[in-house]
Amino acid sequence: MRDVAIIGTGLIKWGELWEKSLRDLAVEASLNCFKDAGINKVDTISIGCMLGGIFNGQEHLASLIPDYLGQKHVPAMRLESACASGGLAVRTAFLEVASGMADYALAVGVEKMTDVSGGEATYGLAAAADQDYEAFHGITFPGLYALMAKSHINRYGTTREQLADVAVKNHHNGALNSMAQFPFAITREQVLSSVMIADPLRLMDCSPITDGAAAVMLTTVENARKLKKHPVVVISGIGLASDTIAISQRRDICKLDAVEIAAQRALKMAGKTIKDINFAEVHDCFTISEIMVMEALGIVKPGQGGPATSAGLTALDGKFPINTSGGLKSKGHPVGATGVAQICEVVTQLRGTAGKRQLPNAKVGLTQNMGGSGGSCIIHIMEVKS
Amino acid sequence: MRDVAIIGTGLIKWGELWEKSLRDLAVEASLNCFKDAGINKVDTISIGCMLGGIFNGQEHLASLIPDYLGQKHVPAMRLESACASGGLAVRTAFLEVASGMADYALAVGVEKMTDVSGGEATYGLAAAADQDYEAFHGITFPGLYALMAKSHINRYGTTREQLADVAVKNHHNGALNSMAQFPFAITREQVLSSVMIADPLRLMDCSPITDGAAAVMLTTVENARKLKKHPVVVISGIGLASDTIAISQRRDICKLDAVEIAAQRALKMAGKTIKDINFAEVHDCFTISEIMVMEALGIVKPGQGGPATSAGLTALDGKFPINTSGGLKSKGHPVGATGVAQICEVVTQLRGTAGKRQLPNAKVGLTQNMGGSGGSCIIHIMEVKS
Repeated sequence: MRDVAIIGTGLIKWGELWEKSLRDLAVEASLNCFKDAGINKVDTISIGCMLGGIFNGQEHLASLIPDYLGQKHVPAMRLESACASGGLAVRTAFLEVASGMADYALAVGVEKMTDVSGGEATYGLAAAADQDYEAFHGITFPGLYALMAKSHINRYGTTREQLADVAVKNHHNGALNSMAQFPFAITREQVLSSVMIADPLRLMDCSPITDGAAAVMLTTVENARKLKKHPVVVISGIGLASDTIAISQRRDICKLDAVEIAAQRALKMAGKTIKDINFAEVHDCFTISEIMVMEALGIVKPGQGGPATSAGLTALDGKFPINTSGGLKSKGHPVGATGVAQICEVVTQLRGTAGKRQLPNAKVGLTQNMGGSGGSCIIHIMEVKS
Repeated sequence: MRDVAIIGTGLIKWGELWEKSLRDLAVEASLNCFKDAGINKVDTISIGCMLGGIFNGQEHLASLIPDYLGQKHVPAMRLESACASGGLAVRTAFLEVASGMADYALAVGVEKMTDVSGGEATYGLAAAADQDYEAFHGITFPGLYALMAKSHINRYGTTREQLADVAVKNHHNGALNSMAQFPFAITREQVLSSVMIADPLRLMDCSPITDGAAAVMLTTVENARKLKKHPVVVISGIGLASDTIAISQRRDICKLDAVEIAAQRALKMAGKTIKDINFAEVHDCFTISEIMVMEALGIVKPGQGGPATSAGLTALDGKFPINTSGGLKSKGHPVGATGVAQICEVVTQLRGTAGKRQLPNAKVGLTQNMGGSGGSCIIHIMEVKS
């Protein structure tokens, strides 16, 4: 297996972008990535997108995106694993380069979510759950995560304030990220008084509906060294795992087994333990998710996610900063793009170009991107290769 | 890159299977594949499916399928490239094994199409076209292929009878395939008098709407030799290419450039020319497609696809048999499963276990699986490794 480096990242400002179509979003982020990498022709394109079909009536992005990106006849594929689609696209680009099938592989994640009604959006997102045994019966994603939150509160004494503190922290960071959909700070009181969505989760516990895209360019470490554009950031570990799609079938409703197992696989591949990781971007689709993910990754013990957050462990100046980008909560959550954008943030931190949100000692970073209620998880570990 | 072999195939009887859900179909084909391979645990699962979201409200098959297949926590991903989704799933499984990421990789293709109305089916399938510049304006897939057929007729003098002969040949073969949706022979007269769908294409020029699944198991050649269950069938070449999604943007409406380029790539990887290939399974979603594909693959010269078909070149006893399985026309076309089932047929022929439709000299076979109106194409070349 060849060693793989990330030589480019491409982001656009996320939001409710009515003037941009699905293809526009993907092309714009990809062109920004080409510019950053100093490359304008790739051997393969892997595209992460969940809802092109349901929301936009557009499947077959493996034809559409190379076409509109001016990459005539380039091999392409679309990956989907609900909200983990973006991370999967990067993993597939990694396989292309690692196997020797391609030298330069673009991974682009995209989602165009704001052209549909709230009801349609809820229906579409619920396609990440078990349609026959969950969604069809009326439960929504906030509902599924609310069940997990209630259980976590009951078992561990996690508090409403601790949940709120996840959102407060992430908005603090997002306020320093000009690409974020909601780049402003919020208070604990604002979270606690926001409208109830699914008890105990309120509006400000939930990540938003977003139009957006993100891209990364992968090549061999050897090629990356020749280009000399940036410090050489390598992907040293990847872990992918699945779990039951329905939460009723899980071993434990308070545990995210797919996250734990994907992390073990990625750490093993990288030859590291969680103590070797300096910072992470994690999948805070709801505030409870970030708390449960901290526990599944082994950053804290089960039940300690809430208290550790309120104590500042995961703050920008904490011992283990999480979601320096603002996370899904503040940066936005265009589902197919999220996993790719997480990787962009880690690369930016490792390069030392994160501006006001730059961490002082960013050497090894991790991304955790999750599908559905934890039915799939993809983890990447990245570091600067000296 | 490690050499990759196919050690198992799994099919089910295709049709209008109201008693089986999307997950049932995928699980049943996969279990048949496990049995054939003599393996009951895999390292990774790649799933080809186009319309789970639009037709079944079910995305996130990367969680659902390992869950229901009893492959707890196994890494999985879903690939989509319209009707080429199945071929892409096999290609990704190949990358898993070739790169060393996995030793045993299952690729399963599935589609559950008959739970929706004809109008919904037409809308869903049109998501393979350019939604903004083709489908939204009302053109359907039969309409797109009818435009190509009209152009081919005008330029080359291809006749209605030659189109019909593609369907007649494929039904002849499908009548020998117990897994086919429509396992019976038809006559040229029946095709020519069937109801008009989109001039010049009639009902019997069109592949049907089908529920179905198919699976293959991949591992290293080394592992395949150890298992000694079957002759060792290797994937010696893979080619993937894209083209403009809209036919109006193509270089030539009578040419399938993605097919031609994918074939060149696959043949180069296998170190072969088209003359080294004995037989093929091709994407006859409409009768005109098979004729245009024959020309794009270089089996015949441009314009000769029709006359060569009527002269018997591609018949079961012809010099270059095409679609011994019955093709999409007779076997059925559950879009995500088609590319995988094509590979099952080639493996069956190479093993010499195709029964009444067995070819006498099947040494090297090719599959050609196409997305949309030719906006993407994936080609595999397989042969018995001595």
